[in-house]
Amino acid sequence: MYTLLKKEGAARRGTYSTPHGTIQMPAFMNVATAGAIKGAVSALDLKEVHCQVQLCNTYHLHLRPGDQQVRKLGGLHQFTQWQGPILTDSGGFQVFSLAKLRNIKEEGVTFASHIDGHKIFMGPEESMQIQSHLGSTIAMAFDECMQNPAEYDYAKHSVARTTRWLYRCKTEMNRLNALPNTINPQQLLWGINQGSVYDDLRIEHMKQIAELDLPGYAIGGLAVGESADVMYHILEVLNPYLPKDKPRYLMGVGTPANILEGVRRGVDIFDCVMPTRNARHGHAFTTEGIRNLMNAKYELDEHPLEDGCQCPACQHFTRAYIHHLLKAGEMLGMRLMVLHNLYFYNTLLEKIRTALDNGCFEQFYRENIEAVSTRI
Amino acid sequence: MYTLLKKEGAARRGTYSTPHGTIQMPAFMNVATAGAIKGAVSALDLKEVHCQVQLCNTYHLHLRPGDQQVRKLGGLHQFTQWQGPILTDSGGFQVFSLAKLRNIKEEGVTFASHIDGHKIFMGPEESMQIQSHLGSTIAMAFDECMQNPAEYDYAKHSVARTTRWLYRCKTEMNRLNALPNTINPQQLLWGINQGSVYDDLRIEHMKQIAELDLPGYAIGGLAVGESADVMYHILEVLNPYLPKDKPRYLMGVGTPANILEGVRRGVDIFDCVMPTRNARHGHAFTTEGIRNLMNAKYELDEHPLEDGCQCPACQHFTRAYIHHLLKAGEMLGMRLMVLHNLYFYNTLLEKIRTALDNGCFEQFYRENIEAVSTRI
Ligand SMILES: [Zn+2]
Ligand SMILES: [Zn+2]
Repeated sequence: MYTLLKKEGAARRGTYSTPHGTIQMPAFMNVATAGAIKGAVSALDLKEVHCQVQLCNTYHLHLRPGDQQVRKLGGLHQFTQWQGPILTDSGGFQVFSLAKLRNIKEEGVTFASHIDGHKIFMGPEESMQIQSHLGSTIAMAFDECMQNPAEYDYAKHSVARTTRWLYRCKTEMNRLNALPNTINPQQLLWGINQGSVYDDLRIEHMKQIAELDLPGYAIGGLAVGESADVMYHILEVLNPYLPKDKPRYLMGVGTPANILEGVRRGVDIFDCVMPTRNARHGHAFTTEGIRNLMNAKYELDEHPLEDGCQCPACQHFTRAYIHHLLKAGEMLGMRLMVLHNLYFYNTLLEKIRTALDNGCFEQFYRENIEAVSTRI
Repeated sequence: MYTLLKKEGAARRGTYSTPHGTIQMPAFMNVATAGAIKGAVSALDLKEVHCQVQLCNTYHLHLRPGDQQVRKLGGLHQFTQWQGPILTDSGGFQVFSLAKLRNIKEEGVTFASHIDGHKIFMGPEESMQIQSHLGSTIAMAFDECMQNPAEYDYAKHSVARTTRWLYRCKTEMNRLNALPNTINPQQLLWGINQGSVYDDLRIEHMKQIAELDLPGYAIGGLAVGESADVMYHILEVLNPYLPKDKPRYLMGVGTPANILEGVRRGVDIFDCVMPTRNARHGHAFTTEGIRNLMNAKYELDEHPLEDGCQCPACQHFTRAYIHHLLKAGEMLGMRLMVLHNLYFYNTLLEKIRTALDNGCFEQFYRENIEAVSTRI
């Protein structure tokens, strides 16, 4: 259940209680694609970097190790040893971006595994069944995530199907939650708004899915090819139609600047692979901007990645050491970078929440929006 | 300074005090080639896996980041944040195994970097200078490590040169330790016995280098192509000629069985990349034998890698999870395997020391020598 504690402009400070604990919002979800964060980071490490929610990918876990295996092993909480809330995506995004030879029909999608090419069918019922086996806290509805820009007519047709799929998701989830051996019988289903870059399709779809009175709503199909301005515009257009008493999840977003802009437009929860993906390329997020640790200027730099940072990497290791580890291809370099970047994201959201608590989010936004995108 | 506490047969229980702390012997050194353990394991993690001594490689650190850089950054202890004893090898082994186009003369060796091919000269003085810059606790003498089997005449010639090199090492180390800005002015020089598989060469060389009264002696040039029986034979042949009041280091060895056999023949300290290298291939060392975690039989196995193991991996994660991580190529799999394997090696040595303390090493040896090599 979402509780709105405070508002500043469109920005919302709230809490969301779940069977696996309460999420302070706005929040950032840490992406553990195949049940582990990239960079040798475990569920225990996630606590150290102030993670609140872990996101796992249905598509990847369905292919490997298999959702039936995870079910037999007691579900994702038992499997990964992360005891807090876990959100699973629906698999839709990966089916439409990673899988090969997909074929979309009213029933669902037939596609070929990106690992070994074997044919798989996934529709709303299959997605719900897989997520039920995984036993996540929050399951996402199965939708079609279109590339932007999509043709208007295609988008209209697709959105209508996504709505029909959502009804089937809800029916199937209700059935699964009522079964005797369900891992998490209180699994929550969140709906996803689509409509590409078209205001009318977005609004119409949002109105339709709001009628289902689901415990949360995501805005999907953004950060998939369109400009940031278009994304911000869609958030503004949708704002009046999003249920005020439900959390709002902006999927797959984004940079620290995207997050500040998202919160300013009423978003409650985010997820993104940037903290891990950028770590691999040596990019450290800091309050002053983005450092490229591959840069030769760090060879003799005895500062931590960020001065004053309390993350497990900055408390002990220097830029010079991490620069060396990255250059030498030592896994430890990646791990330290990921720990820092996740800590940065999670504590950025903490600072945003504190600013909202103190009624000075707008000031915090102004003081940080430029710096967080600067390359230093 | 080495203190012999107790003997059981040829096996020795002792302590070795250094400026960076006392090493309980027999001991196992954890290999941090380029200043980091493979598998995203940091100096902080080393404490968790009961590591006493870290070994770093002179050749690798000379090439990258460069020993002058490490010196400017305060030496290896400051650089890696490992505060206990550190041993550096001389670079000789890597020059003779990794580098290309080497050319050996009386002065030293010219070789091409395995990273970018650039020409480098390293002789006894250069090796001592590099290790002095690194500031390790124990520096190893620069020697020629021959492949086994080597021709008798070549081996005889090579060993004589290694002796001459050792005198030059000692002179240079004395000079470096007396300089005003030396990172570790108490750096200890250990000599290395060579002689391939020839008893007379080994004994003659050992007698010669014992005359220098160095604070420690290594047996080098073993585990480089000869059978384990030949290695054990050399250890037995050398035993009467090794100074009793100095630690004895068997370089690059080995399997848990090699270690039990080595201790039984008077070895005090070991190093080996097996715990990390085997982790990469999914091999977990346990008291009952070696498990291959890539094996499908672990898919639903909810036991830890080893029942009752107190390592950071076994305290939290199952074989099923680690099997999945290794299959999915997730770095976390490698990290958990390495943490377990290092813990296994370090605590194997703890158990050996306890057995020696209690006068029951022979019994411990008999109870474990078969099992540790079994594939289960
Ligand atoms: Zn940090
Ligand atoms: Zn263990």
